[in-house]
Amino acid sequence: MPISFELLATDGRARRGTLTTPHGVIQTPIFMPVGTAGAIKGLTPRDLADAKAEICLTNTYHLHLAPGEDLVAKVGGLHGFMGWDKPILTDSGGFQVFSLPKKGMTEEGVSFKWTHGDGRDVFLSPEISMKIQQKLGADIAMAFDECVPYPSTWKESHDAVDRTLRWLDRCIAAHDRPDQALFGIVQGSTYKDLRTRSASETAQRDLPGFAIGGVSVGEGHDLMMEAVDAAEPYLPTHKPRYLMGVGYPNDIVEGVARGIDMFDCVLPTRLARSGIVFTRAGSYRVTKPKYRKDKFPLDTDCACYTCQNFSRLYVSHLLRSQEILGTVLMTLHNVAFYLRLMQLIRDAIEAGTFESFRQQFLASYMPDVVSDADLEP
Amino acid sequence: MPISFELLATDGRARRGTLTTPHGVIQTPIFMPVGTAGAIKGLTPRDLADAKAEICLTNTYHLHLAPGEDLVAKVGGLHGFMGWDKPILTDSGGFQVFSLPKKGMTEEGVSFKWTHGDGRDVFLSPEISMKIQQKLGADIAMAFDECVPYPSTWKESHDAVDRTLRWLDRCIAAHDRPDQALFGIVQGSTYKDLRTRSASETAQRDLPGFAIGGVSVGEGHDLMMEAVDAAEPYLPTHKPRYLMGVGYPNDIVEGVARGIDMFDCVLPTRLARSGIVFTRAGSYRVTKPKYRKDKFPLDTDCACYTCQNFSRLYVSHLLRSQEILGTVLMTLHNVAFYLRLMQLIRDAIEAGTFESFRQQFLASYMPDVVSDADLEP
Repeated sequence: MPISFELLATDGRARRGTLTTPHGVIQTPIFMPVGTAGAIKGLTPRDLADAKAEICLTNTYHLHLAPGEDLVAKVGGLHGFMGWDKPILTDSGGFQVFSLPKKGMTEEGVSFKWTHGDGRDVFLSPEISMKIQQKLGADIAMAFDECVPYPSTWKESHDAVDRTLRWLDRCIAAHDRPDQALFGIVQGSTYKDLRTRSASETAQRDLPGFAIGGVSVGEGHDLMMEAVDAAEPYLPTHKPRYLMGVGYPNDIVEGVARGIDMFDCVLPTRLARSGIVFTRAGSYRVTKPKYRKDKFPLDTDCACYTCQNFSRLYVSHLLRSQEILGTVLMTLHNVAFYLRLMQLIRDAIEAGTFESFRQQFLASYMPDVVSDADLEP
Repeated sequence: MPISFELLATDGRARRGTLTTPHGVIQTPIFMPVGTAGAIKGLTPRDLADAKAEICLTNTYHLHLAPGEDLVAKVGGLHGFMGWDKPILTDSGGFQVFSLPKKGMTEEGVSFKWTHGDGRDVFLSPEISMKIQQKLGADIAMAFDECVPYPSTWKESHDAVDRTLRWLDRCIAAHDRPDQALFGIVQGSTYKDLRTRSASETAQRDLPGFAIGGVSVGEGHDLMMEAVDAAEPYLPTHKPRYLMGVGYPNDIVEGVARGIDMFDCVLPTRLARSGIVFTRAGSYRVTKPKYRKDKFPLDTDCACYTCQNFSRLYVSHLLRSQEILGTVLMTLHNVAFYLRLMQLIRDAIEAGTFESFRQQFLASYMPDVVSDADLEP
């Protein structure tokens, strides 16, 4: 196996482990910042390492479109391309089946409405996704799956579970890069019976890791956790579990409480660009008038470079002035906040105090401080 | 005097010195990256220090408009605001008299067409510029001057020289911050007699440094150098000379050859955003198709973070994909290139080989690789 997972401690269902990959060891539970097009919005690899990132995620679909996997391979794969010598995970393009307009989907694969620069359709299949991901050369590749929207009927969700399993077997057959791990993905929408069956059948494949996908598609926190509860017990204990596209800090704490080891989400980087700051107490928008004259750091409880060196009034000024350094400093803080949260979670599991950490965190964290109105630019 | 200048060596008219300021010692000749609104386009202070920047420049007019000098003062002046503990120079707003639409100009001062957020006119005078710059708290403040456009008549240029001298005396009278140096500015457009008179009369004031302004306004390299030649001999030897807003690398080498110690220019940062890369051989646009598959660094002769870690194809991809990391990496290289050029210049002066360095540099450098067409986005 190109990666190995060691379970160091458990506390309730929460797990503390290490994931060893060709590009280094990851302490779990871990959060993976997202660099869709091969860059974590304004952060250099040294900024990212400074924020304590141990692994990052990039998107196969986007990199396939530009600059193309062949060019990435030409400079040593994603690690050389991005100048990041630590672990990388690529998604499969399966999420884009859900999130982007499709031209059509068959048993063979999916064609997207988007076209290549030369006018060809973008077409992804299990085999094509594997080929692209092997060229991109991440440490961990994801199976090409069918992610259904929320809500979907039981029948639609059932069929997607079956197709995802058939596609998984095609991915396994097509995947032969020995220094890259392939993770299978559980689907099943919000149907517990489907989640359980998908997890059980996916787990029958001898894979180095498993993901729960098809969440964070609008179903909300409670249904997301129900989906995890229905799937997680059927995943093998000694393999890492990755909850895809999740989430807000409270989603992550609750995910860890349910035995999840890995998370990724665009929230800390995307919301940074709108001036939304994550803190232990919740989120706030630093460009609001009340912070315009505020000389305190973004988060008074944070040791990141941004919080150690700059004031809310400076960051607010930069964002209002369209200075890209504002986005850089915001992104750096939000990523550091998520990774600091993971460190606190790991510490609590090791100390056997995760349940009290969870209770205390959820009692003091106000996830609804960021309203939809706050997300407008 | 809040600053002191020591001349370490000369080589022809080229000078090698040190400028000691309240925030540290600068090795001259030096280039100052420009952070108009209090940020050098995407670069954190640690990136800037890594690019070997010793001093940076910010714009009084822009900071007066947003966030206002009072807010900057609230967090310890520009050094605290920007998280930059090395020297800073502020311009006076005089250049904006040239570059921005005016409502009117009188002996008292200038009102701009731009208005404050509350609808008040923006009005600058020698006294107001001094008041703002003292609150901003840079190590070096510039006198408020009248910079005429190119071309201007002899009479217009003559009157601007006289007004600049009268305004200089008002600046000197209004300036009382003991830990900040005030530099006078030579004007005179492209008229040698005016440049000489302006330099002689400005030099009669007991100031810690002198600038040649009113250049880089469209007059071109040769007329710029004639203006320097007409002014520089009349500036005191043991004070630093600063050629404002200059320039391309060849302008800088020729400026040093004429006894200039300090330069600033938006070119390395502004052109970075258009994908223009500076190298010893000239400039090129990395987003051109020919670099799309190029695995070499931006500048194969550069030790900067960008060139040590990333390929042209990666930077080109980032710029094409509107990823702000592209701008960050480009800016970092261009600033590092300018500062490396200054290091080579200083080394050559110390070694007594500046004239051969200059000849060799100018013979191999192609300033016209960047055509106006290249500057389009």
